[in-house]
Amino acid sequence: MDVMKPNAIRDLLRLGADPRVISFGGGYPDASLFPITELEGIVHEAVAVSGRDTLQYTVSNGIPRLRQQIAERMTRDSIPCAEDNILILQGAQQGLDLVAKMLIDKGNVIITENPTFLGALIAFNPYEPAYATVRMDQDGMDMDELELTLQRNPGAKLLYTVPDFQNPTGVTMSLERRKRLIELANRYDLMVLEDSPYRELRYQGTPIPPIKSFDTEGRVIFLGSFSKILAPGLRLGWAVASEELTQQLGLLKLAADTQCSTLNMSIASLYLERYDIDAHIKTIRETYRRKKDLMLDTIRRTFPQNVSFTDPSGGLFTWLTFPEGFDTTRFMADHALPEAKVAYVPGATFFPLEQRVNHARFSYSTQADEVIVRGVSALGQLLTSRSPNH
Amino acid sequence: MDVMKPNAIRDLLRLGADPRVISFGGGYPDASLFPITELEGIVHEAVAVSGRDTLQYTVSNGIPRLRQQIAERMTRDSIPCAEDNILILQGAQQGLDLVAKMLIDKGNVIITENPTFLGALIAFNPYEPAYATVRMDQDGMDMDELELTLQRNPGAKLLYTVPDFQNPTGVTMSLERRKRLIELANRYDLMVLEDSPYRELRYQGTPIPPIKSFDTEGRVIFLGSFSKILAPGLRLGWAVASEELTQQLGLLKLAADTQCSTLNMSIASLYLERYDIDAHIKTIRETYRRKKDLMLDTIRRTFPQNVSFTDPSGGLFTWLTFPEGFDTTRFMADHALPEAKVAYVPGATFFPLEQRVNHARFSYSTQADEVIVRGVSALGQLLTSRSPNH
Repeated sequence: MDVMKPNAIRDLLRLGADPRVISFGGGYPDASLFPITELEGIVHEAVAVSGRDTLQYTVSNGIPRLRQQIAERMTRDSIPCAEDNILILQGAQQGLDLVAKMLIDKGNVIITENPTFLGALIAFNPYEPAYATVRMDQDGMDMDELELTLQRNPGAKLLYTVPDFQNPTGVTMSLERRKRLIELANRYDLMVLEDSPYRELRYQGTPIPPIKSFDTEGRVIFLGSFSKILAPGLRLGWAVASEELTQQLGLLKLAADTQCSTLNMSIASLYLERYDIDAHIKTIRETYRRKKDLMLDTIRRTFPQNVSFTDPSGGLFTWLTFPEGFDTTRFMADHALPEAKVAYVPGATFFPLEQRVNHARFSYSTQADEVIVRGVSALGQLLTSRSPNH
Repeated sequence: MDVMKPNAIRDLLRLGADPRVISFGGGYPDASLFPITELEGIVHEAVAVSGRDTLQYTVSNGIPRLRQQIAERMTRDSIPCAEDNILILQGAQQGLDLVAKMLIDKGNVIITENPTFLGALIAFNPYEPAYATVRMDQDGMDMDELELTLQRNPGAKLLYTVPDFQNPTGVTMSLERRKRLIELANRYDLMVLEDSPYRELRYQGTPIPPIKSFDTEGRVIFLGSFSKILAPGLRLGWAVASEELTQQLGLLKLAADTQCSTLNMSIASLYLERYDIDAHIKTIRETYRRKKDLMLDTIRRTFPQNVSFTDPSGGLFTWLTFPEGFDTTRFMADHALPEAKVAYVPGATFFPLEQRVNHARFSYSTQADEVIVRGVSALGQLLTSRSPNH
């Protein structure tokens, strides 16, 4: 098993913990947005009033009330479903592990966007898949290339996509391509894993229905998460799938860790019951939009002109492209960290097959406004001072 | 993948939820023993005072303070270790999954006690191992038969054992056999998974050091759990292993679900900080001992003489042996449930290879005293009335 990639993530997490370094690396939500006052009352109530239930074991698919609440929210988001279509997960990450465990045998082909979410590769790798990648543009995965890839890999088992504000690029798949994707999946008998933890964090433009909303054959598994809209420390995500697949995944969940925390599921359910999570999400959106604009403006002001970047309509990340030959991993180790005290995620690890070295993922969600300006400016000055045209 | 066994567990969990049925099936702790008052204050504080940390992501191996606290407790329990030897898990169940994922390729031999913990088989099965089983007596796994089994399976990868108050039999492995086990593991280059979630629930006799305490070659992975000594709804367990194995398992943990709940790890850590968990465990022990005695006394009083049972020195379970030919699965479906409204776990599913039908696992931890007497008596009357000698 390839343990290099997780180590790279770990090293970055460690760096992010160094107080002298400004990290744009981790996709952490802004902790100042956690609804702490509301949760304070809820956790106390969850233990004081119903502790004998919330501290006990429960059913492995997750407490029924929370599954109902999620089903109602997903139904409003164009995926008509009910409690038996919902499996509560230890974060959406667990969905990546369980879906791969269910579907992938050694050597089976998984098709991903290029680049794709590193955490998905880490989850899939222990099952020893082969990867086929499909290039992206500003509208997401290129469907003509997907069709060619399917023709070249007739036994491909699974397509993995992050259609909304993709990690790492921030790009969103267009409506037309989502429809085309489902046509291709039906034609080539492909399972689709739609990983959408940032979906509700749209700052601009109109929401595009999930791929799952066009699925008439039960071949799409949708993953959602409370990590970005409530709190990642609760470790709660969910899968939406056909009843049959939900049951199969539920058995794998039972085998993997019995169930999610009854207490945390109760907290999330009470929060949805008592408070207006959509109003809360609106505040998060406004904050992240401001931070995103601040980061992009600061890049525009301070970075050399030959560095381009995406302008995401939601989510946590912008994706920077440096000139050909510029190695973002080496630059971070040799200059960004020691000289500017700034960290980001070098882009190379997001490519499943041929790693490209001239990209970087910057997260604008974690740091406070003034820290974003300070860190990005420091890096911009460093880059400009080292630029050949300077 | 064999999905029958998880389904059997699920059906039992469902039955246990039927209010008309008295279930001795699930290994649930007694919820009236949860330290609710103490946890009430702690959860409130964890969110109100340090919510920006406890609701945020943290390092995947688990918060350092909790790992230190567990290392101190394990060191006092004859396993000298430090923070870097501890991985926090989503219950000990997750340790079964991650260890199998790390060590087992399709067809590799796992050696287990016969019978063994069903949840372990469910966790191991997706990795498609072959099983070899070793018979048990009142001192645990038979070491002569283990040696023969190792000779017959020279490539055996992993030995799985529940040495303390085994699930399902309630039997404890003797000191002499633990030492012999390590000698054999060293000689045959075998990894050992020591699963001991009930270890601290000893009611009678002297504690026997863990197998891990005799391990000089880093080949034992020990699993512990807060589920039985604090609260299962927090979903917290831990692995103790060599630094190298802890790191490898930590990477698999990162891939599987990122981390355990930061909030729940903080709750457990604060509880260990503020309260005397050993005093709390003493109360649990006294209660379970009383319930165990009550159940065994009621069986003695009301069951036919030809039903034997183990008298465990700790843990949650007694193991009943009915006459040859008596099928406990069929009896439960046809008589125990409809007529006596009592459930237990039929023993067949605990046998990895050849299922024996004349056993049953009874848990005495979950139900209140009077319910234990009522349920066991009802079953005893039913059995006696159906007994040929009646």
